[in-house]
Amino acid sequence: MPTRPSLPAFWEAQDPGATQDPVVAADLARMFADIDAIGHDPDRPGTGYHRSAWTTQDLALRDWFTREAHALDLEVGVDAAGNQWAWWGTAAAGTPGVTTGSHLDSVPDGGAFDGPLGVLSALAAVRHMKARGVAPRLPIGILNASDEEGARFGIACFGSRVLTGALAAEVALARADEGGTTLREALTRAGLDPDTYGPDPAALALSGTHVELHVEQGYALADTAQAVALGTHIWPHGRWRVDVEGVPDHAGTTPMDRRQDALLAALTFPSDAHAAALAHDGRATVGRMEVQPGGANVIPGHVTMWVDARAATEQQLDALVGDLAPWHPLQESLTGSTPFDADLRARLGGALVAAGFRAPELGTAAGHDAGILQNAGIPTAMLFVRNQTGSSHTPAEYATLADCVRGVEALEVCLTELAGRAS
Amino acid sequence: MPTRPSLPAFWEAQDPGATQDPVVAADLARMFADIDAIGHDPDRPGTGYHRSAWTTQDLALRDWFTREAHALDLEVGVDAAGNQWAWWGTAAAGTPGVTTGSHLDSVPDGGAFDGPLGVLSALAAVRHMKARGVAPRLPIGILNASDEEGARFGIACFGSRVLTGALAAEVALARADEGGTTLREALTRAGLDPDTYGPDPAALALSGTHVELHVEQGYALADTAQAVALGTHIWPHGRWRVDVEGVPDHAGTTPMDRRQDALLAALTFPSDAHAAALAHDGRATVGRMEVQPGGANVIPGHVTMWVDARAATEQQLDALVGDLAPWHPLQESLTGSTPFDADLRARLGGALVAAGFRAPELGTAAGHDAGILQNAGIPTAMLFVRNQTGSSHTPAEYATLADCVRGVEALEVCLTELAGRAS
Repeated sequence: MPTRPSLPAFWEAQDPGATQDPVVAADLARMFADIDAIGHDPDRPGTGYHRSAWTTQDLALRDWFTREAHALDLEVGVDAAGNQWAWWGTAAAGTPGVTTGSHLDSVPDGGAFDGPLGVLSALAAVRHMKARGVAPRLPIGILNASDEEGARFGIACFGSRVLTGALAAEVALARADEGGTTLREALTRAGLDPDTYGPDPAALALSGTHVELHVEQGYALADTAQAVALGTHIWPHGRWRVDVEGVPDHAGTTPMDRRQDALLAALTFPSDAHAAALAHDGRATVGRMEVQPGGANVIPGHVTMWVDARAATEQQLDALVGDLAPWHPLQESLTGSTPFDADLRARLGGALVAAGFRAPELGTAAGHDAGILQNAGIPTAMLFVRNQTGSSHTPAEYATLADCVRGVEALEVCLTELAGRAS
Repeated sequence: MPTRPSLPAFWEAQDPGATQDPVVAADLARMFADIDAIGHDPDRPGTGYHRSAWTTQDLALRDWFTREAHALDLEVGVDAAGNQWAWWGTAAAGTPGVTTGSHLDSVPDGGAFDGPLGVLSALAAVRHMKARGVAPRLPIGILNASDEEGARFGIACFGSRVLTGALAAEVALARADEGGTTLREALTRAGLDPDTYGPDPAALALSGTHVELHVEQGYALADTAQAVALGTHIWPHGRWRVDVEGVPDHAGTTPMDRRQDALLAALTFPSDAHAAALAHDGRATVGRMEVQPGGANVIPGHVTMWVDARAATEQQLDALVGDLAPWHPLQESLTGSTPFDADLRARLGGALVAAGFRAPELGTAAGHDAGILQNAGIPTAMLFVRNQTGSSHTPAEYATLADCVRGVEALEVCLTELAGRAS
């Protein structure tokens, strides 16, 4: 009978003793091993994680979070938008605390780190601070945001958007997953009351500053000798839809020279989008394409494509999308550049450098709850931990245990800087 | 309150009196008007017909067929494969009859003529022969074949394939539609016993020769002055699957130069297929394309495409598919050339010319129940009625009432030639 490894498979080959702090390393490894079988088969290393919001898997992760926080003597609550908060100390509206954390849900077939690394690092940081006898002046809260990925109901950062009022509760509750289950039904099954679901200004008021730690979703740190970076801003990004018309007809009987094949007419769009991204140093992806009517023996009469486009600046994004104007793209969503709080960034950058980190600065092309909280008026920062493969939203995503320990150390520096010391 | 037009909308602008036989014209028009509201909105001319096999619409058409045949004093039965037969006279295994007919089901959003024209023309021909006092020596049977289009369960000529044993009943019964309903369940709901579903050699033995009349699915007659053609053969045709691999990754965070985008790699396949068809005077169509995982914010990791390819000869088809060899196409189906019975064709051609038809000969790039019956050893022929638009499997498909009347007249010539006269 195989014995349970003490490390998750993605870390098995490593020696936790080789990291700078073996206590933190062991704690992180234990927590990752604890949750590794949730929505994932630990006996099949390299396979993905399936932890969509409000599924059995997600509820198991929420239960685990509660137990783990209780073991740390934290007070656990759920806000009106279904987000979990675990508090060390008691924050109040007039004396808000310092919050951190990320999310435990995943995209389908996702990696192990996005976003459990942020939640588990927060738990590890608090445990380590307690073990070292640190008594912070301000309360510290750990957030497990609900449905960050948006994989199930189609809107990312669901929990933080509803919490802050950026997404109306009635819109959120009516969203249905692929099987036709609405968020209202999913919440009810999870034991929550959908009638009280909505924004929660009181819960939000307890957060005075927020720091989200996240595995890097790119190659910038993998190309450097740095394990941890400080976030500058979330790239502006959006989604556009392109429709191409043809004439559906019989695939066998219609002569080749009398066809108006929508697929043939659509083929150059994905490569045009690729070229536009290269031209303006941005990103453009056609990830979804629908060919109608879709019968193998019917000439395509209609093709719909969606392009996801992003760039470091709004000017670059405008230029990128401008290159696609001949395709008449229809804007479905657009989020402007979200810079993180400049003062907070300077303060944390100084503290990190003082603690021996180089902490280069990085923008992120992915959306995060941190961006939603920043937009809601909470000074917010992000820390990124080096990703060895640069991959994201796939099982290939990978951070070494040593780098993850550095991430916890950096988070401790930030929390200590912001929460202060009681005496 | 609008009154019901005496003609279906697709014929409204025409004068039935202008056709050669106003009695047959009025009969055909009445029958098309009778069924026009089944799976279709007669108040919206130009819109499509939705008559998938074994749906409420299909069952309504089967009921209509039974009533219409009973009004003609025909004996109606259903064979073990769910096909309806209406007999004028009593055929037996040793003294088989002459059969004709087509199918009443349609592709989604199909036209009015494919294949009701074959069934309604058969009914009109029998009515006209009876009115003229023709007493055929051999019995005449009219077939309404079940699920010719294969639109619901993914296999064309379902009814005739099962009837002849070309498709095993257990395979057929297990096929499921997009909603997960199996043929077994659909048959049960329609009041048939799936446990007796299967080949029916006894029913098949009643057909000594078969003639299917069908609207032309192409432009050959539209380019000529002829209303009716005689079929030579069904083109060889097949379906091949092509898979293209990439690496799924985050659409925002993955640099453009580190992607393996399966969609970008797949883009030239549909145009390669188009070029191969042009080069070998055949047809090739990529009508179905699936991009995985299909999230708008995920780089495509896998693309699957299906190409439908056909040509007048097997040599041309081989050459066409050979041009696509670099894509490693996987053959999913292949049907060789199906020539209709040469003696029968010569006999019917002679009778038609004697009756004043030019009756040019035409191959067909579409599959038909007639091909299945021919392959099952029944000498089979086809008649094609001119299609003004050349379109097929769309609401644009269109034959004039005058041409349809010429089709009924040609069918009468064929039935009289084959069934003889009693005295």
